[in-house]
Amino acid sequence: MANKPSIPKGTRDFLPEQSLKRQFIFDTARSTFQLYGYQPIETPAMENLDTLLGKYGEEGDRLVFKILPRGEKLNKLVQSVVGLSESSETDFKQLNPNASSFVSINIGDEALRYDLTVPFARFVVQNQNELSFPFKRYQIQPVWRADRPQKGRYREFYQCDVDVIGSDSLLNEAELLCIVNDVFSKLGLGDIVIRLNNRKILSGIAKAAGLGGYFTDMTVAIDKLDKIGIEGVREEMIKRGLPESGVKKALDHINRKGDIDNVLRMLSGSLTGEAEAQKGIDEVRKVLKALPMEVKQKVQLDLTLARGLNYYTGAIIEVGHAAFPSSICGGGRYDDLTGIFGLPGMSGVGVSFGADRIYDLMEELKLFPDSLSTSGEVLFVNFGEAEAEACLKLAAQLRMEGYSSEVYPDAAKMQKQMKYANSRGFHFVALIGSEELKQGQVTIKDMRSGDQYAVLQKDLVKFILDKTSDE
Amino acid sequence: MANKPSIPKGTRDFLPEQSLKRQFIFDTARSTFQLYGYQPIETPAMENLDTLLGKYGEEGDRLVFKILPRGEKLNKLVQSVVGLSESSETDFKQLNPNASSFVSINIGDEALRYDLTVPFARFVVQNQNELSFPFKRYQIQPVWRADRPQKGRYREFYQCDVDVIGSDSLLNEAELLCIVNDVFSKLGLGDIVIRLNNRKILSGIAKAAGLGGYFTDMTVAIDKLDKIGIEGVREEMIKRGLPESGVKKALDHINRKGDIDNVLRMLSGSLTGEAEAQKGIDEVRKVLKALPMEVKQKVQLDLTLARGLNYYTGAIIEVGHAAFPSSICGGGRYDDLTGIFGLPGMSGVGVSFGADRIYDLMEELKLFPDSLSTSGEVLFVNFGEAEAEACLKLAAQLRMEGYSSEVYPDAAKMQKQMKYANSRGFHFVALIGSEELKQGQVTIKDMRSGDQYAVLQKDLVKFILDKTSDE
Repeated sequence: MANKPSIPKGTRDFLPEQSLKRQFIFDTARSTFQLYGYQPIETPAMENLDTLLGKYGEEGDRLVFKILPRGEKLNKLVQSVVGLSESSETDFKQLNPNASSFVSINIGDEALRYDLTVPFARFVVQNQNELSFPFKRYQIQPVWRADRPQKGRYREFYQCDVDVIGSDSLLNEAELLCIVNDVFSKLGLGDIVIRLNNRKILSGIAKAAGLGGYFTDMTVAIDKLDKIGIEGVREEMIKRGLPESGVKKALDHINRKGDIDNVLRMLSGSLTGEAEAQKGIDEVRKVLKALPMEVKQKVQLDLTLARGLNYYTGAIIEVGHAAFPSSICGGGRYDDLTGIFGLPGMSGVGVSFGADRIYDLMEELKLFPDSLSTSGEVLFVNFGEAEAEACLKLAAQLRMEGYSSEVYPDAAKMQKQMKYANSRGFHFVALIGSEELKQGQVTIKDMRSGDQYAVLQKDLVKFILDKTSDE
Repeated sequence: MANKPSIPKGTRDFLPEQSLKRQFIFDTARSTFQLYGYQPIETPAMENLDTLLGKYGEEGDRLVFKILPRGEKLNKLVQSVVGLSESSETDFKQLNPNASSFVSINIGDEALRYDLTVPFARFVVQNQNELSFPFKRYQIQPVWRADRPQKGRYREFYQCDVDVIGSDSLLNEAELLCIVNDVFSKLGLGDIVIRLNNRKILSGIAKAAGLGGYFTDMTVAIDKLDKIGIEGVREEMIKRGLPESGVKKALDHINRKGDIDNVLRMLSGSLTGEAEAQKGIDEVRKVLKALPMEVKQKVQLDLTLARGLNYYTGAIIEVGHAAFPSSICGGGRYDDLTGIFGLPGMSGVGVSFGADRIYDLMEELKLFPDSLSTSGEVLFVNFGEAEAEACLKLAAQLRMEGYSSEVYPDAAKMQKQMKYANSRGFHFVALIGSEELKQGQVTIKDMRSGDQYAVLQKDLVKFILDKTSDE
C-alpha cells in the first residue's frame, strides 16, 4: 500500500492525551451516576434493523448504518436484486430518491446503534425479568450516524446517558438535574444554565391560542427560534397556515422571561381554563421544589425549548454554557418508552451528556487537570545490560508504590534517551552508569527544577516519595 | 411490534452486575499498563476496507463485517449490479463460493474493525509525527467478527491490547511478561502458566531437520497438537508430504520438556550449526534473564506454540490457566508491523488480553470482589412530599461523603419499597415518617444485621461513617 493510510470520513483517532481526557469525563460521569444509585449496562453495537427503524423519523432512518449480511443471506440478496423482485422497492427509493425505480435493494437486517435510548428500551423489555423497577441505568457507549460530517459533527461519537424507568415521580426529574449539576461542577463547568420546559405547558398554550390542531407545526417553528429569531418564528408559523391571531397569543406566552417562579405564576394566571397547562405548570413547580437552591438557581423556564418533542411527554431539559454555542446535555420525560417493544405503561426520564462537546468546551477553557498528562514519573536511562538489570528492579519497586516508571529499552545514545524523556514529560530521570552500579547509587535528575541528586539505590523509593509529596 | 425484541446472534447485553465486573477487569489492566508507561489510544470502529482486507488471511477477510454505503455510493453499487459489470466478480465469489458466477457485488468500502493490531499499525503510520518512539500504547475496544457464534465465541467482543513499537530490545518482551503477571495477580489469577516460544528456534529446527521448505506446513500441523496429540501431528505432517526422517527429527526437538534453562541448553547443543536457532535461543535467554524470579518461574518454553506464526517473527507468547481450557492472553514480536502501511523497519511486540475469557474464568473461580456489587448503601423510604424533602437533603450529604444513596421516588407502599431495597441489596434503609420528621430523627435499619437505630438527622453522616468503618 503506497498511499498514506486514512480513516473513514467523520471518524477519528484519539491520541493518548485525548484518550486520557475523554476517560476523565467518562470516569467523572460514571462515579457521579453511581453515587445516585444508577447502574451501568452495555448493549451490542449492532441491533436488529427492525429494532431501530421507525424510531427516529424518516431522516433518522436514513442515517442508520446498516451492516452487510454474510454468506447465505448475501446470496439471497443478490438473487433478489438480479431477479428484480418488487417486494422492497420503497426501501431503496427512500435511501436514494434519484434512483431509477426499477430496482430495489433491501439489504442487511442488522445495523449500528443510532443512539442509546432505543437500545435501552429494547434492553428493558428483553431483560425485564432480571431487573428491579424503578430501574436506574447509565450507559456510556459510541453511536453511529451516517450524517454529513462537519466541524463538531462526527459519524461515530460517544453518548453518555442516564435514565430511570418505571417511575413517574417528579423526584426523578429533580434527581437528574442534581446529577447534571454535580457532573458539570466536578468537571469545572459549574456555571451551566439548565433550561427546562414541559410539553404539557406548550400543549396547553397551543390549545388556549386556538392552535390545538397545529401543535406539531407550532413546535417545529418554535424549535428554530435560536436560528431565526422570534419574528422568523412568527413568519414560519403563518407560512405553515396557523391563524395569525393564535400565533400572536401563543408567542406572547412563549416569550415570557424572567424569574422562574414569577413566569410560572403569570402563566398559571393566564391559562386558568387549560387543565393540561396547569398540570405542566404544577410539574415544573414540583421539580423546582425538590431541588437544592444551588441547582434551582441555574434553572430557567424556556418555553421555546421543543427538542425532540415528538416523543417527550413531560419535562424537556437542555443544558447550556455561556462559552459554547450548542447544548452540552439534554433530555426529558417520555411516558411510554417501552411500548414500542410490547411493554406499555413504563414511564422514563433521562438525560444524555454530549461527551464530545463537553470535551471541546473543557479544552477551550483549559479545565482538564494537569495530572491527566501522559507524563511518566521516572525514566531510567539504559547504559547496558548489567546497569539495566539494576534499573528494572528499582522500576518495579517504584511501581509497587504507584509511581509509573520505565526503563528505556535500548542502550541508545544518551541524547536519544533524553529526547524521549523530554517528549514524554518525565518528572525524574534516573541514571545508573558503571560508577553508580559499583557504588549502589543512582543519579536522579529532577527535570522540572533541573536539580540533580546522588541517591543510594535502596533509598530511591523513599526519595521519590519525599520529593513528590513536597509538591 | 408484537414479538419479543431480540439482538443479533453472537452479540450480548450486559446487565449491571456484568458491566461492573467487566469494568473491573478493564480498570485493573488500564492502571497496570499506565504504571509501566503505556498510554491509551482509541481508533474508530470503522476502518476503510482496504486497511483491513488482506491482513488476516482468506478466512479472516471473509469474517470482516462490511458497512453498507449510503446515498450516492449505494446508487452506483446498484447500477453496477444491474449492469452486470464484470469488474469485481471475484469479490462476491469469494464471499460465497456457491453463488452463480454471472453477478458480483463489490459492496461497501468501510468495515468494522476485526482486531486492534492492524488499526494500531495504521494509527502509528498515520499519526507518526505526533508520537515519540518507542511508542508504548494500550487499547481497550470492541472488535467484530462474522464468525459462527458458539459458546464462548461472540461476534462482538472486547480486546485489551498492550504493545510497544519502535524498539527491538528484548527488555520489551520481559516487560510485557511482567505486565501479564501483574495484571493476572491483581485479578487473583497469579497462578498462570506463561508459554513462550520463538519463531527463530522453530525455523532453525525445521532447517536442521531438512524441513526448511515445509516450514508453514510444519507449523500448521504443530499448532494442532492440543487437539490431535503428538501422533496426530506426525500423521498430519506426513500427510502434508514432509519427509518422514525430518518429521522425526523435528518432533524430537519440539517435544523436549522440563526445566526451561535445561531445555535451552540441550537445544543449543543439538542445533550447533543453526545460526537462526541459536539466535532464537539467545533471545529467549535474554528475556528470561530480565525477568524477576516470580515471573520467570511461571514461564515454560513451549516449542509447540505456533499461534499466528505467519506474522510473528520472534517471541511467541501464550498465557494459560489450569482452570480454563483455552489461552487467556497471547501475543508476540513482529519485526515489520507497519510496513504494510508504508513505514518499514518498525519492530513491535505486544500481547492481547482476552477479556471475555478472563471474565468467565474469574466468574467460575468467584474472584470478583464483593465491593463490585450493584448494591447501594442507603435507601431512604419515601413517606410523602414533606418527608421526602428531608430525605433528599440527607441523601445529598451522604453522597458528598462518597456513600451511594437513593430516595425512593414514589410514596409507594412500604412493602414495595422494601422489596426494592432487598433486590438492590442496600446496606441501610433510612426511614423518616411524620414522627421522625417532627423530632428531627431518622430510623436506620441495618439490612445485614437486622439492627435498628434511632439517629438524629444531623448525626446521620457520622453514624453511617462509623457503622461502615467498623467493618
